[in-house]
Amino acid sequence: MTRPLSYRLAGVDVTAAERFVEAIGPLVRSTHGPEVVTHASRFAGLLRPDLDGISDPVIAATCDGVGTKVLLATEPAHFEGLGRDLVAMNVNDLLPLGARPLLFLDYLAAGRLDADRLGAAVRGIAAACREAGCALLGGETAEMPNVHADGAIEMAGFAVGLVDGDRLPDPSAIRPGDPVVALPSTGLHSNGFTLARRALFDQAGLDPDGTVPGLVGTLGDVLRTPTAIYVDAVANVSFKAAAHITGGGLLGRLAALLPAGLGARIDPDTYTRPPILGVVSQAGGVPEEEMAATFNMGLGFVAVVDEAPEGWLRVGEVTEGGGVDLGYASR
Amino acid sequence: MTRPLSYRLAGVDVTAAERFVEAIGPLVRSTHGPEVVTHASRFAGLLRPDLDGISDPVIAATCDGVGTKVLLATEPAHFEGLGRDLVAMNVNDLLPLGARPLLFLDYLAAGRLDADRLGAAVRGIAAACREAGCALLGGETAEMPNVHADGAIEMAGFAVGLVDGDRLPDPSAIRPGDPVVALPSTGLHSNGFTLARRALFDQAGLDPDGTVPGLVGTLGDVLRTPTAIYVDAVANVSFKAAAHITGGGLLGRLAALLPAGLGARIDPDTYTRPPILGVVSQAGGVPEEEMAATFNMGLGFVAVVDEAPEGWLRVGEVTEGGGVDLGYASR
Repeated sequence: MTRPLSYRLAGVDVTAAERFVEAIGPLVRSTHGPEVVTHASRFAGLLRPDLDGISDPVIAATCDGVGTKVLLATEPAHFEGLGRDLVAMNVNDLLPLGARPLLFLDYLAAGRLDADRLGAAVRGIAAACREAGCALLGGETAEMPNVHADGAIEMAGFAVGLVDGDRLPDPSAIRPGDPVVALPSTGLHSNGFTLARRALFDQAGLDPDGTVPGLVGTLGDVLRTPTAIYVDAVANVSFKAAAHITGGGLLGRLAALLPAGLGARIDPDTYTRPPILGVVSQAGGVPEEEMAATFNMGLGFVAVVDEAPEGWLRVGEVTEGGGVDLGYASR
Repeated sequence: MTRPLSYRLAGVDVTAAERFVEAIGPLVRSTHGPEVVTHASRFAGLLRPDLDGISDPVIAATCDGVGTKVLLATEPAHFEGLGRDLVAMNVNDLLPLGARPLLFLDYLAAGRLDADRLGAAVRGIAAACREAGCALLGGETAEMPNVHADGAIEMAGFAVGLVDGDRLPDPSAIRPGDPVVALPSTGLHSNGFTLARRALFDQAGLDPDGTVPGLVGTLGDVLRTPTAIYVDAVANVSFKAAAHITGGGLLGRLAALLPAGLGARIDPDTYTRPPILGVVSQAGGVPEEEMAATFNMGLGFVAVVDEAPEGWLRVGEVTEGGGVDLGYASR
């Protein structure tokens, strides 16, 4: 005879999961404005979008994770930063479509429900949602023994926004001479960490808890710097095309931004390259082209406009003929 | 000197990722109707919801994964089934709010980009989206060496629907004597697999590739049976409250469905209990109460109505006084 088996004995603590959901309630509700509709059924979150002044309501939706940046997180505070990364990676992806973020949902999965780490992640998510002006409308916290190792956490996010179909950005309006403007990044953001880790730790043998000349704080602290949220800076800015600089790096994202037959020339003296990029490049002997095709190089959001908006960097201009020239790498 | 490092040498094959995205393009587009808005920018998907006849448009959003059911998948065909599970778990969660599914996004993460398995998952996702009448509007496929073991795939999904705020289900209208109606499940769906696996494989030592008296096909085949999609069956059905029977099982979900002070009596002779449940229960010596608090017990979707709709099972009725009585387990 076998011992009578229960869900808890099998490794899933439903009561702990319920306690966790209860504990994060105030964090979740701190992101809720009057647009969030409450209902007895908890199967889905409800939100009444403000359609005032929108003649052709179009929903924008996107999904992203934080990649292998999770491998640098050990302390709860690190997971708080990753929560912010998760929101930033998603809401920033709505902006190139001209969409205003409405809501966010998170999916967190772990081998064991570690309330300290997961709670810190949700704290970061909620703070970032408040900054981005979107409601944390729901989420899933999955305890999956045997899928994830103890301590490992998988983080995926999902954001929904609203845009007026009559005001979608129109890349076909881009002309040679149009200013290329940009917003600075805070560091690597959440892309290229597999390459960065390989270069820094495997090749150069650096210690994440150690310091490196030219960097403020430990190497790990610098790498973990959360991704900037560009919602406020982009609000009310009219652009012909824009890009959140993520996978593919500054080079790849700029190239994808431009219509066929047009290029861009970027002046590297108009912006600051975060010192961590030089450290990665030197540690791995990574060529400039590869750096620029992987990392944001210091610019987290780029747009083509008629006129440079206040507070943005004017980093270059659209050129006749294809190809992107960054001044140190080109495609 | 170190060897010059590239993203590919670090373990991330960007070209393979681009090829994969290209390959799944036709699958994704097969789910797109005229409501999907195409745009040069690929940062987010766009969808123009049909607001005709909706006086108070409210967005419903939900997020879910497939839990440890992934541990039973080895062949590409299994991942196709999991793709269907992923969509079902999410779109079914929109239905208790009275929402019609509009769009779905998937997040797939793996240690190595295995195009056969991931492609099969997307094939299942696309087929299920077509069945659910929602657009596969985007998704993320993340290659994350060192986060996931080779072969392991993390699957998370997100669904967005639309409901008229004037027609949200109203549980406060539930009265004693109201019929409780239900739709049959196809098996375990995507919940309770940690308990099922522990009972079947660890305790009873059964082989997923073997057969078990009373089950058609191998044990693994029966366990992997994809989750039912209830979108069509629920469309145009008016209910006071409804539940997708997921975590918490039939007992927990029915209890959460009812307003305080009301209960339900369910007649176990009105529906069929899938034979796999008996196999799990016997293998692990799992008591009936624990079974009913973990699994759907044969009913995948339950609603309280004024009158039983055609094609639904009338399984019981609302009772005065709290508590749910399943005939073999109660709470």
